[in-house]
Amino acid sequence: MSTIQNVAYQAGVSTSTVSNVLNGRTDRMRCETLARVEAAILALSYRPNRAAQQLKTGNNPMLGLLVPSIANPMYGYIAREIETVAQQKYGHRVMLGNTYRSKEIETGFFDDLLSHGVRGAIMISSQLDEQHLDLVVQRGLVAVSYDRPATPGASPALDHVTVDNAAAARMATEHLINRGHQRLVFATAAGQTMSRREKIRGFLAAAKSAGLADSAHVMEGSKQAGFGDSEMADVGRMLAARIAQDPRRPTGIVAVNDLMAFGLMAGFRDAGLSVPADVSLVGIDGLFLSALMNPGLTTVRLPVPQMASKLVERVIGRMADPSIKPSEFIFQPDLVERESVTAPPEAIRRLA
Amino acid sequence: MSTIQNVAYQAGVSTSTVSNVLNGRTDRMRCETLARVEAAILALSYRPNRAAQQLKTGNNPMLGLLVPSIANPMYGYIAREIETVAQQKYGHRVMLGNTYRSKEIETGFFDDLLSHGVRGAIMISSQLDEQHLDLVVQRGLVAVSYDRPATPGASPALDHVTVDNAAAARMATEHLINRGHQRLVFATAAGQTMSRREKIRGFLAAAKSAGLADSAHVMEGSKQAGFGDSEMADVGRMLAARIAQDPRRPTGIVAVNDLMAFGLMAGFRDAGLSVPADVSLVGIDGLFLSALMNPGLTTVRLPVPQMASKLVERVIGRMADPSIKPSEFIFQPDLVERESVTAPPEAIRRLA
Repeated sequence: MSTIQNVAYQAGVSTSTVSNVLNGRTDRMRCETLARVEAAILALSYRPNRAAQQLKTGNNPMLGLLVPSIANPMYGYIAREIETVAQQKYGHRVMLGNTYRSKEIETGFFDDLLSHGVRGAIMISSQLDEQHLDLVVQRGLVAVSYDRPATPGASPALDHVTVDNAAAARMATEHLINRGHQRLVFATAAGQTMSRREKIRGFLAAAKSAGLADSAHVMEGSKQAGFGDSEMADVGRMLAARIAQDPRRPTGIVAVNDLMAFGLMAGFRDAGLSVPADVSLVGIDGLFLSALMNPGLTTVRLPVPQMASKLVERVIGRMADPSIKPSEFIFQPDLVERESVTAPPEAIRRLA
Repeated sequence: MSTIQNVAYQAGVSTSTVSNVLNGRTDRMRCETLARVEAAILALSYRPNRAAQQLKTGNNPMLGLLVPSIANPMYGYIAREIETVAQQKYGHRVMLGNTYRSKEIETGFFDDLLSHGVRGAIMISSQLDEQHLDLVVQRGLVAVSYDRPATPGASPALDHVTVDNAAAARMATEHLINRGHQRLVFATAAGQTMSRREKIRGFLAAAKSAGLADSAHVMEGSKQAGFGDSEMADVGRMLAARIAQDPRRPTGIVAVNDLMAFGLMAGFRDAGLSVPADVSLVGIDGLFLSALMNPGLTTVRLPVPQMASKLVERVIGRMADPSIKPSEFIFQPDLVERESVTAPPEAIRRLA
């Protein structure tokens, strides 16, 4: 690899002249000198050594990105948006880590970010407890948390960017209630996260407002399954088998996310139940895959590109200007209607 | 952040003693000294500065990973496997970039890898022409290419790890032929990649062997669509609409990958055709999502965890030992039978 000395030699100038060019200090430079240096940089494919720059400036144009698992299509989608904005708009690269929602793995990743001189991180985690995040902020990391609001009352050490998860579940639930469903289930995985807790709150609030508090229930998958990963669909498939056996089974189901809904659809098919004739189903996320399901899945769509832009803007903005205080940004979702919801079977029988 | 000086002060030793501990040179150290240094490292949450280490050693425990788009569930899946193996088995972090199969974006990513002191890269690209990759190898990058074989005759500058794409398509095609299908289509996106070319070769070879060369065709999506991304499903949906209009339409279809197959299924549904009663369909990839489709998608499954391990092992092994020569590793796929294939409609009518 070429060094700054090679460039200086090739251009017939001093290394400090090359350094001036690299850092844009060319105001008082002769055009001919500038052209010679630029030609030498090109000819030698010279790129400044970021490790050396970083030792001087303490900055590394890189962000950390923690996801529970990049194999989950929702995290793949948001990661693509984040990496593209970080790179194209701000010239920052992204260091990726799968955390499987383990605090130990998250902490190890933060250690490595700091030791690589990375000063900013976006974490998709939604842990109930963020104390281990406060610790890395104390160690100098600028952090933005995705998919949970700030802890009420506490002065936040990091930004929070999230969809209004309670509103998303409320929207899904009201859609089912408006179609006449009275026996409702919110299907989720075992293990609480802040976003799951918020969605359950929205589901129960919508049921209560409609006078259906007694016939609205939360069902959790078994503990063995993984978290937030591709296993989410397996959890849905198992939950559907349990729901199908219930003689007074619910007719309207809100899935904690689209992947869970995909699993529920497959599970109902296994059990000989039809979506939506026997069971109506609404997902949350708005994955492009939800349009490809049979039937197409009605889902509450999150504004992923907008949230990804905000995540990147906040972390890079606060790295550049430490006087900016951490804040909270709540985005609103919208409902995409497809074919997985109809009136409940008893209403259809009454009409027939 | 703590420095090595802080640790030395806290432990009451010299910085060179701390350095000896960090580098495992503790043979002649008193146990009590070692314990004091380790306690100070823990108490101060000290982590060695990788940027400084890197300037000395020239190595950065990081890999580059280039994918066409991490929003494509296949690349999300392989990226999770790669990152997990790199981190858990080799202690290497992963810098991720979406390239949208653009040579310009790929080259910019390589530049940034080199300037960050990263010396190894895994590229998921399958470009027909790899000359821009040879160039970065000359600049000192250890590179492994996924999803295409080496160029025959050329002495390879990089490793190639791939499934046998021709065998994958042959396997899918023979499965349809064995069920009695004679009018066959291979559905793919516009724009050639090496893996697409190999799959087409396998499809045509299988048809020819069965005496069906005249009734086996390759259909390409329109040029507007993107490459290898979530748009692949949109391409499939549009192709299905074209196929449905053909009065002598094919009865057996091999999709270039599972995402394309998902789009084809949705498109046939739009057109009022049933899979598999009217059209049988086989995908390639073996995404977990293919089990959730309705009907479940028969697909040729790639050994993703094994290939991911090989990709990481090769790039890290060759970074450590430059005398290891680049080589080629071809993996075999297997067929997963589900519900998207049956006998062709004319055979079913004959039986009825």
